[in-house]
Amino acid sequence: MEAQNSSVNAIINPIPTKPIRCIVKLGGAAITCKNELETINEENLKIVSKQLHQAMFPVSASENAPGMDWSKRSGASEQPTINDELFDQQISDLEKFVVVHGAGSFGHFQASKSGVHKGGLSQPIVKAGFVATRISVTFLNLEIVRALAREGIPSIGMSPFSCGWSTCKRNMAEADVSMVVNAIDSGFIPVLHGDAVLDSSQDCTILSGDVIIRYLAAELKPDYVVFLTDVFGVYDRPPSEPGAVLLREIAVHEDGSWSVVNPILGDENKQVEITVAAHDTTGGMVTKISEAAMIAKLGIDVYIVKAATEHSMIAINGSLKHNTPEDWLGTIIRLVK
Amino acid sequence: MEAQNSSVNAIINPIPTKPIRCIVKLGGAAITCKNELETINEENLKIVSKQLHQAMFPVSASENAPGMDWSKRSGASEQPTINDELFDQQISDLEKFVVVHGAGSFGHFQASKSGVHKGGLSQPIVKAGFVATRISVTFLNLEIVRALAREGIPSIGMSPFSCGWSTCKRNMAEADVSMVVNAIDSGFIPVLHGDAVLDSSQDCTILSGDVIIRYLAAELKPDYVVFLTDVFGVYDRPPSEPGAVLLREIAVHEDGSWSVVNPILGDENKQVEITVAAHDTTGGMVTKISEAAMIAKLGIDVYIVKAATEHSMIAINGSLKHNTPEDWLGTIIRLVK
Repeated sequence: MEAQNSSVNAIINPIPTKPIRCIVKLGGAAITCKNELETINEENLKIVSKQLHQAMFPVSASENAPGMDWSKRSGASEQPTINDELFDQQISDLEKFVVVHGAGSFGHFQASKSGVHKGGLSQPIVKAGFVATRISVTFLNLEIVRALAREGIPSIGMSPFSCGWSTCKRNMAEADVSMVVNAIDSGFIPVLHGDAVLDSSQDCTILSGDVIIRYLAAELKPDYVVFLTDVFGVYDRPPSEPGAVLLREIAVHEDGSWSVVNPILGDENKQVEITVAAHDTTGGMVTKISEAAMIAKLGIDVYIVKAATEHSMIAINGSLKHNTPEDWLGTIIRLVK
Repeated sequence: MEAQNSSVNAIINPIPTKPIRCIVKLGGAAITCKNELETINEENLKIVSKQLHQAMFPVSASENAPGMDWSKRSGASEQPTINDELFDQQISDLEKFVVVHGAGSFGHFQASKSGVHKGGLSQPIVKAGFVATRISVTFLNLEIVRALAREGIPSIGMSPFSCGWSTCKRNMAEADVSMVVNAIDSGFIPVLHGDAVLDSSQDCTILSGDVIIRYLAAELKPDYVVFLTDVFGVYDRPPSEPGAVLLREIAVHEDGSWSVVNPILGDENKQVEITVAAHDTTGGMVTKISEAAMIAKLGIDVYIVKAATEHSMIAINGSLKHNTPEDWLGTIIRLVK
């Protein structure tokens, strides 16, 4: 992901009537099985959905909220049952969240086989790949919407392509977020995703979930942004390597530069920097931090944390803004003034 | 469906660079099994998809066009295969179509159980029903997109809700069609559907496929509009009743009034009118004709025809504009000047 900006955007976007609490990214690695084509990590997704429900309904969250997915289950012939509670229940106050998810083992196969990200819709393979990619990612989106709805979250799938979002030279171009704001103001939780979109300079490309989050963060100004991933946070080198150190807090300065403030890296600092840079050529860790730093620069805390853990629960419910427990594992990226 | 108008709309919509050939409605009754909850009429859908492919690629249509749905088949563990033809094929000239489908046995259960069409999102049952309805209709949309893609049609699912379309007093209000136009101009076939949407006067409602078609017809000015249904056309009474007569041609006048011109109903005219009116209270046939007449009034031929028949093939490929075969079965609704 290259550094991008949204200066092309000339649309005046509305601001939600009540502030957005959180934009949460469900990382592809956390909710799908990375090495199995089009396979959802059902267990993680269920825990994540329960944690999100708890954070969204802090007052009234119950173990068994009435589900909102009334589809016929595969193989079942009878009509789905609707929880009676829904008929007499009061609407609970819902914290405003936006969910954005990555693709994981969905879409990547189709996109990489056809080169959708490189553009060129006059080539049949790119055009077909565009169609195939959208089929795959919209299927994942529907499954995530259903998983959230089953836990009682009023989730609404919204595809960037259908929203009319497009790119120019692979940077976010036009993005009217009014449909997202309207959905939030009506009490729904929009669920967006990385998508194949039109690009004015190269016909088409892939708009990643991370770029969407950065754009939405700038437009919606949430209290905090959470990236749920499959490791405990950002490390100084690939976490599988011996001696890898979890970077617990990264301070972002007003000029956009950043530095690791916890752990204090002291004399090793230089070496860590080199390792980080080396890692970046393959894994993009510096890029990842830089992306997060651009959000933090807006005064929005960013938490990178392992999905479906006690640590993700703490990050999602926002308590890190006031207090970081000693034993909390994850990376906080925060503006210092 | 009540008579509606789109005068609320203040958006200046773009016009596609090349004229749209056809807007085709896949009626819910034609592509789903009406009495079986969330069940697709696979056989009909496959034939309809093949017929659409033939009409869209009149020069190069082949029996086995390379498919564009590369999802993992249910239960299959291996990677999907991509037709080699896609790598060396030339992009064929594609006739511009827009597909809109109804809900049939999808969405109706969820919408009617919760009263989404009546609005009132402060009631938990309506809010949950809204979520459940969208899950059901977007699932159907994805399956239709996949069926079309399997036949080589570059289909792109677009949900009215995600497009930001909304209603006011249940009439189409804001509807920026630029994302639809951009998809068409990029060589894709947009596939829209009846959807649960926000309504400025009653929070939410159901935006039907028929209303979408009328709006798109006015904005996109296609050559003709085809309604694919499960009977041969419009009859003077329910087609299951003895003596029901297929209305083969209805003339629409510039003031919006209409009359049956084939068959010539002669002396029976009055009685037919009464039967029609009686039928309308339950089945909405006069409403159906009135809706079609509003499209025909724009100078756009409307064909109502049974899906997946030789008659639907003739309607879809547009040859009725010039010549109606003696043995063609269906209803033509056309402006006379």
